[in-house]
Amino acid sequence: MSYRDIFEQVKAGTLTVDEALEQIRKFDAEDLGFARIDHHRTLRKGFPEVVYCEGKTPQQAAEILIRLAETTDASVMGTRSGVEVYHLVAQMRPEFQYDEQARMVYLKRQASPPVGHVVVLAAGTSDLPVAREAVLTLELMGACTTLIVDVGVAGLHRLLEHLDTIYAARVLVVVAGMEGALASVVGGLVDRPVVAVPTSVGYGSHFGGLAPLLSMLNACASGIGTVNIDNGFGAGYLAALINQLGEST
Amino acid sequence: MSYRDIFEQVKAGTLTVDEALEQIRKFDAEDLGFARIDHHRTLRKGFPEVVYCEGKTPQQAAEILIRLAETTDASVMGTRSGVEVYHLVAQMRPEFQYDEQARMVYLKRQASPPVGHVVVLAAGTSDLPVAREAVLTLELMGACTTLIVDVGVAGLHRLLEHLDTIYAARVLVVVAGMEGALASVVGGLVDRPVVAVPTSVGYGSHFGGLAPLLSMLNACASGIGTVNIDNGFGAGYLAALINQLGEST
Amino acid sequence: MSYRDIFEQVKAGTLTVDEALEQIRKFDAEDLGFARIDHHRTLRKGFPEVVYCEGKTPQQAAEILIRLAETTDASVMGTRSGVEVYHLVAQMRPEFQYDEQARMVYLKRQASPPVGHVVVLAAGTSDLPVAREAVLTLELMGACTTLIVDVGVAGLHRLLEHLDTIYAARVLVVVAGMEGALASVVGGLVDRPVVAVPTSVGYGSHFGGLAPLLSMLNACASGIGTVNIDNGFGAGYLAALINQLGEST
Amino acid sequence: MSYRDIFEQVKAGTLTVDEALEQIRKFDAEDLGFARIDHHRTLRKGFPEVVYCEGKTPQQAAEILIRLAETTDASVMGTRSGVEVYHLVAQMRPEFQYDEQARMVYLKRQASPPVGHVVVLAAGTSDLPVAREAVLTLELMGACTTLIVDVGVAGLHRLLEHLDTIYAARVLVVVAGMEGALASVVGGLVDRPVVAVPTSVGYGSHFGGLAPLLSMLNACASGIGTVNIDNGFGAGYLAALINQLGEST
Amino acid sequence: MSYRDIFEQVKAGTLTVDEALEQIRKFDAEDLGFARIDHHRTLRKGFPEVVYCEGKTPQQAAEILIRLAETTDASVMGTRSGVEVYHLVAQMRPEFQYDEQARMVYLKRQASPPVGHVVVLAAGTSDLPVAREAVLTLELMGACTTLIVDVGVAGLHRLLEHLDTIYAARVLVVVAGMEGALASVVGGLVDRPVVAVPTSVGYGSHFGGLAPLLSMLNACASGIGTVNIDNGFGAGYLAALINQLGEST
Amino acid sequence: MSYRDIFEQVKAGTLTVDEALEQIRKFDAEDLGFARIDHHRTLRKGFPEVVYCEGKTPQQAAEILIRLAETTDASVMGTRSGVEVYHLVAQMRPEFQYDEQARMVYLKRQASPPVGHVVVLAAGTSDLPVAREAVLTLELMGACTTLIVDVGVAGLHRLLEHLDTIYAARVLVVVAGMEGALASVVGGLVDRPVVAVPTSVGYGSHFGGLAPLLSMLNACASGIGTVNIDNGFGAGYLAALINQLGEST
Amino acid sequence: MSYRDIFEQVKAGTLTVDEALEQIRKFDAEDLGFARIDHHRTLRKGFPEVVYCEGKTPQQAAEILIRLAETTDASVMGTRSGVEVYHLVAQMRPEFQYDEQARMVYLKRQASPPVGHVVVLAAGTSDLPVAREAVLTLELMGACTTLIVDVGVAGLHRLLEHLDTIYAARVLVVVAGMEGALASVVGGLVDRPVVAVPTSVGYGSHFGGLAPLLSMLNACASGIGTVNIDNGFGAGYLAALINQLGEST
Amino acid sequence: MSYRDIFEQVKAGTLTVDEALEQIRKFDAEDLGFARIDHHRTLRKGFPEVVYCEGKTPQQAAEILIRLAETTDASVMGTRSGVEVYHLVAQMRPEFQYDEQARMVYLKRQASPPVGHVVVLAAGTSDLPVAREAVLTLELMGACTTLIVDVGVAGLHRLLEHLDTIYAARVLVVVAGMEGALASVVGGLVDRPVVAVPTSVGYGSHFGGLAPLLSMLNACASGIGTVNIDNGFGAGYLAALINQLGEST
Repeated sequence: MSYRDIFEQVKAGTLTVDEALEQIRKFDAEDLGFARIDHHRTLRKGFPEVVYCEGKTPQQAAEILIRLAETTDASVMGTRSGVEVYHLVAQMRPEFQYDEQARMVYLKRQASPPVGHVVVLAAGTSDLPVAREAVLTLELMGACTTLIVDVGVAGLHRLLEHLDTIYAARVLVVVAGMEGALASVVGGLVDRPVVAVPTSVGYGSHFGGLAPLLSMLNACASGIGTVNIDNGFGAGYLAALINQLGEST
Repeated sequence: MSYRDIFEQVKAGTLTVDEALEQIRKFDAEDLGFARIDHHRTLRKGFPEVVYCEGKTPQQAAEILIRLAETTDASVMGTRSGVEVYHLVAQMRPEFQYDEQARMVYLKRQASPPVGHVVVLAAGTSDLPVAREAVLTLELMGACTTLIVDVGVAGLHRLLEHLDTIYAARVLVVVAGMEGALASVVGGLVDRPVVAVPTSVGYGSHFGGLAPLLSMLNACASGIGTVNIDNGFGAGYLAALINQLGEST
Repeated sequence: MSYRDIFEQVKAGTLTVDEALEQIRKFDAEDLGFARIDHHRTLRKGFPEVVYCEGKTPQQAAEILIRLAETTDASVMGTRSGVEVYHLVAQMRPEFQYDEQARMVYLKRQASPPVGHVVVLAAGTSDLPVAREAVLTLELMGACTTLIVDVGVAGLHRLLEHLDTIYAARVLVVVAGMEGALASVVGGLVDRPVVAVPTSVGYGSHFGGLAPLLSMLNACASGIGTVNIDNGFGAGYLAALINQLGEST
Repeated sequence: MSYRDIFEQVKAGTLTVDEALEQIRKFDAEDLGFARIDHHRTLRKGFPEVVYCEGKTPQQAAEILIRLAETTDASVMGTRSGVEVYHLVAQMRPEFQYDEQARMVYLKRQASPPVGHVVVLAAGTSDLPVAREAVLTLELMGACTTLIVDVGVAGLHRLLEHLDTIYAARVLVVVAGMEGALASVVGGLVDRPVVAVPTSVGYGSHFGGLAPLLSMLNACASGIGTVNIDNGFGAGYLAALINQLGEST
Repeated sequence: MSYRDIFEQVKAGTLTVDEALEQIRKFDAEDLGFARIDHHRTLRKGFPEVVYCEGKTPQQAAEILIRLAETTDASVMGTRSGVEVYHLVAQMRPEFQYDEQARMVYLKRQASPPVGHVVVLAAGTSDLPVAREAVLTLELMGACTTLIVDVGVAGLHRLLEHLDTIYAARVLVVVAGMEGALASVVGGLVDRPVVAVPTSVGYGSHFGGLAPLLSMLNACASGIGTVNIDNGFGAGYLAALINQLGEST
Repeated sequence: MSYRDIFEQVKAGTLTVDEALEQIRKFDAEDLGFARIDHHRTLRKGFPEVVYCEGKTPQQAAEILIRLAETTDASVMGTRSGVEVYHLVAQMRPEFQYDEQARMVYLKRQASPPVGHVVVLAAGTSDLPVAREAVLTLELMGACTTLIVDVGVAGLHRLLEHLDTIYAARVLVVVAGMEGALASVVGGLVDRPVVAVPTSVGYGSHFGGLAPLLSMLNACASGIGTVNIDNGFGAGYLAALINQLGEST
Repeated sequence: MSYRDIFEQVKAGTLTVDEALEQIRKFDAEDLGFARIDHHRTLRKGFPEVVYCEGKTPQQAAEILIRLAETTDASVMGTRSGVEVYHLVAQMRPEFQYDEQARMVYLKRQASPPVGHVVVLAAGTSDLPVAREAVLTLELMGACTTLIVDVGVAGLHRLLEHLDTIYAARVLVVVAGMEGALASVVGGLVDRPVVAVPTSVGYGSHFGGLAPLLSMLNACASGIGTVNIDNGFGAGYLAALINQLGEST
Repeated sequence: MSYRDIFEQVKAGTLTVDEALEQIRKFDAEDLGFARIDHHRTLRKGFPEVVYCEGKTPQQAAEILIRLAETTDASVMGTRSGVEVYHLVAQMRPEFQYDEQARMVYLKRQASPPVGHVVVLAAGTSDLPVAREAVLTLELMGACTTLIVDVGVAGLHRLLEHLDTIYAARVLVVVAGMEGALASVVGGLVDRPVVAVPTSVGYGSHFGGLAPLLSMLNACASGIGTVNIDNGFGAGYLAALINQLGEST
């Protein structure tokens, strides 16, 4: 029952003012939630519902994923998920899929073709799991996506080979561990928004991703927004929102 | 001399193979450089040339700003600039302006009216200098910008008052010190890209902005990209690039 | 206009459903705001309005303090305030006072006598400014407060002298720099809530208060809540809220 | 033998001055110890005896728990305990219970009904183990406790649904990982003491709970005391002490 | 061949100046080495030879321990050693012993009775492995040692019970995790050197022992020297050297 | 009035039991203090009373120093003191002295000649202020002290020149900034206790003394106790306590 | 096909200008790559191609190694490689070798004899794996290499024994954990470049190699360049480049 | 008196064995020093004697500089020196010079022309002071040096313009603040040793140079050695030693 329903019923006399007030009281918060959803439904078409699986028991994660699959008609995705969550989910809902590299369990429900163009660059092969998480998120959110791998700055020519693709992007995602310099170099080449994802690929004074994180936050190139270490999902999500802006809104 | 020119001359015999090789070796890099500038000039129309003034002597900063003003027809801006840079610049180029709060010296050259809509939210009055730097950058880059101040999460209702404006934004910039929770709350309300700027407003275990920086990087809301502590300019620049995408490109 | 008003007018036909929906949309947030204020006014009697002055210009701080003094009948306090804020405020409102040690400008408006009993313990003389900020906050919030100074754990007997006073407290505030061990020792002596305030008094590996902060967070005694380094105001505020619970509510 | 006894015997000549001095020297400390226990026994009725099991062998932990169960008539609890401790304890004392989520082994001995009202809010499902530790501690300490789960700030409406319960609390415990912004938002809504518990739920620049810890210590809302990362027990203990103050003492 | 030998031979003409120079050049270093050993042999009588086993393969560790046992007549000890090192050593040298708690494999060779008095205080049961490492080191170095356990500052009276023993010590070792406040309290009670050992017992913002380490380095009591986190051996070694000074030297 | 006095008067009937109890009640804590003082007076002969002046106003510091000078017959010292404290003190007590390099104001009261032998080694000229603070503390505590300067490990031969003096020391204090390697090298040369003092001399990744602090805590040589960064006083105090043990006690 | 080949064919008419341009377009980047390789081939003779195996699946790592072995005639090495990579590689290419200590899989293809002289010093036995990685890298890059082990500064004479070898080196690599003081001491002895490698050998406040890393960066001796913690490969690579300079170039 | 002198005199009988031994004992260390100096004098020709002026009083610094100028015939340099040191030195020794940007006071004594080729690259104008310190050090040590400024990675083409110069270098010094990515990019372009110098140019999460320091230590390109933040002198010194190796030695 929406706000409009309530008002119509009050006007029609099928709901007293007191009943309406009672309804509103409970409804308020949910309503704020649902109102937000309603309001944005058209914009958000194709936006998946997301579950962060780490720290939840496989049972908890699976239950939430299945409930979401039942109550929405959007895609559904569970990030940082072990394969055992997928096994539990797939027993009930075999249409779910699992991507081992991205550690993501998901249900793809997408009618309209992908739009725009997002380029995801992964500095090295070891950064692939995080990059793949970004790519999969972008695809579930309806973005046309290209993945370019192994273009670290230690061999600039490998990056420069892809200049055409890079210049054609509406927004770019740069995934890099080690010192994360790729974000600066790419940011210096393009005049499009760059989403930078530091990864935990490295050792010693890398401190689990601190080195590329600081590197990206301090990049001398402008136009770079950084997300958390290894947060391929977050980067994909942000890039998808930006990519969407290029559509006639 | 382009690649084609070189090949034609080699074919014609007016260039020996060794001369061609010599030519290529130098050419490669410069060309890449100039090509980039040429190629993007039209796209970058309206994008200001930017000078980071900190760590430069006022003389150095002023000289670069004036040279840029002479050699480009874009706006020119100097960030983190003391007033003495402005005084030096203004002697030569009185059309430059200075914004004391944003600590920015700039020359505005903009023909076309501002486009899109960027909302800049500052959690507290103390965050204003950073927010102002973002706003000024956005304006110099042609973005239609609204600034909302003093909407920290300790008084949610003050934020919720502005929901209409917030929902109308194409992209949002959230400027917050202390614990930086505003980014999470705003990120949870909207489905538009959010650029988060931690500020150094705080003390003790704030560690010069580390607290809101970590807070923003770990925000439970999706769709947030973070820039460096106190980097109002960087946030404005990124938001302007994103805002631009909403135009028919 | 309340929810009830809206429903009554919809029922009466003086508001169309669409007008009502428009009304609700804006109203939602403001209402939540004002409802909170209304709802809590009576409970919050005697709670001061607080301005964090650091990072604001003296003019900004003074203006906010004066506006608060005019629009509320509660006490008003400005923390981390230089004396120049006081001078600006006192020109307009001579009834304001300034405490140099606590760096606080305030207007005391309290009818009812102080209640309960809060004991503030400062480990050393150098911790006095922070302790004084806590004491002044407590007094402005109506708590009966005792300050005990120079009872660091290097001379346990000095602390044990005050056992009677310590045991009589409803809640205790422990202010300590150096290694902050006083919080553990006091926390081990009493069965009342202890609010611990690390201070930046120390040097070297003290890292501006990190040492006592970690010490207090890891205290082996139970019943201790920690606030930010040098945050005497925050400790006083929390202790006053706790102290208040001892009154018949 | 009390001080008075000693003086009487010295006066009576049954104790020489030297014997008295010897007596005093030993007596001083033990007496202070036992005096404290005696003095507070009545006040502390219902407070459990607590054993920190981590770092102890299961045998050590079990032995201490059983000895406590034998020598006191209070509840007994072992925190951070593996199930093997429980198995050892239950062989001797089958009335002990084990809570797997909270990792707590405990013996509940409570006659009087729970008092007051403590609300524990957990930002996400992954924060449940820590929240459960707080709830169990509160219950063992005689506090009437309500647990609200999955009210992170990324979906404010879910939190606002529970406003009635939140406003009814005497003291609140906020358990949150990620960026820990829930503490600030709740602290801004209520005028009651808030105990904030950062959790290690997160990854990358979360640094094992550092992000929400700093966030909570720097919260722009007042009235918040923070405990150690993942310290659900400590939060419950402090909240129980505060909750107790609301009873006629 | 000593310096004297060389000079005698040069004088006698059995060594030319150039041969002597050559001799000296190599000899210089070895001599400095052996000279040191010779010079101090008598003083160091009873000082064990020590092997740090972590990071070595069991084979490497065992081989070094056995070689030491063969080439010196002092005690031999291997710290941070797994039991598999012991098994390898014991096959060859069954007189070696293993202490599981201290993770030390050792060969005790001591004629003279222990001297002086070192008191080792362990704050909690969980600190016992580190404390035991200190005690065992002290005993192997000939110090008369007393271990007192579970005297954390959360229950001061338990510490004060042992005042007699504490005052009788020539030097004290304080082993404490959590916030490490015990070092400050003990340091404030005595006028003897205190060696403080932070342990990694704790969690969350304990950061693997950083909390008590900083606490001990910033102790407000004087006369405290700190060793590395969990370095029971180092503390025992230093305390043994200090204890030795009390003997007629 | 001591315990003995009280007992004697009770025995003599000049004090009733109740008066004695009253006396004891106040006296207890002081007594614990004074008892400790009495008990150790002979040992502590020559131990100065110490005031940490930083964070105190010059007036506060001066007042405490003068009061100490009046109530004890020991030496008195104020550490980390500006010259203005000295000026205030000297007006009342011209026998006080000031050491500008060590930033110490002190009153020397020493009858007996210095004992033992402490060698203080300063790695570089820039470490002299900290080293001087250690030396002055040692002298005020009655230790015979030698200062050796500019013996950093980058020129080993400068250190080795002083081997005779180094081997003759009962205890050594090593003061070093930069990487603090001197502590390891000295610790490897001697079999005496070494007190290591990291200094803040350095820049960049020195992080205000963190580099030598970690270096000293992780020294591969045994027998080293570390004090806080720049804590020359603390090192001197600890070394004096150790040096004292070498006297017939 | 090289640039020269293209030009020759264009000149010869076997390639049209358009075909050449097409060729160049793809070739450009590769060419920049290969050109770089070609250009430097003679210099780089004997320089291995290197694969960082960590974070790659064994299949990925093995595939890249084999492809490199097929497409170049240089040596090939895979660092931080588990033995399972070797097993996969060896099935296809049995001429590959595996060094378990250095965790390196490699194919040695070297005609010319090793040149120059690099001395690798390992402070302790536990530092051997990192030192071995450096040595193996140096050997694969054609450097004549000597390894000296167990020369920590706690026993200076053991280091000084090797002075002849040390003075004979063209460049030195110092591998040290704990406090890493060996780099300073060696740097002070020689006037040759020193490459310092901190290792993660240590515990507690060692923080995984931070202690020796900071120590080496702050070394008071000049002429030291530092590489990442445990980066034996990087140190060997840099040292080999430096060593190469000593050959007639 | 050298070793040889002593032997000759012993042989000649003008020195007894005991006198020789006495001589040797003192001499040993100095000798080790002088021997080292003698031995390397020819190699070190042109190597300046260096004084670190920070933390020294101007008088101390000036005195040491003048003494060095008198006792050696090498160049003399004082790093991190204020102009007041220069003024003091110049009064006595007017041939000293001062470089304000590099903050270096120096006396140049060089006969032979500079050798080799070192290229110093500074990422931005703000990095110039550090770069200048490196250049001046290199020049005083006899290296032929080229400085290239403002070649940050945000504008790759500016860097690539200088490829010829870069490829011609024997060794390169890269000076960069912000994220320090220039080191990786340059390291990927060349096969020569690269000395990387992070600078403190930056703000916020730059943490005084930590960002580029970690970036350089984790560079994905091989062949890079890193020195301390802002340590232009250290980088120049190391590069000069490496550059020297290219000469016929």
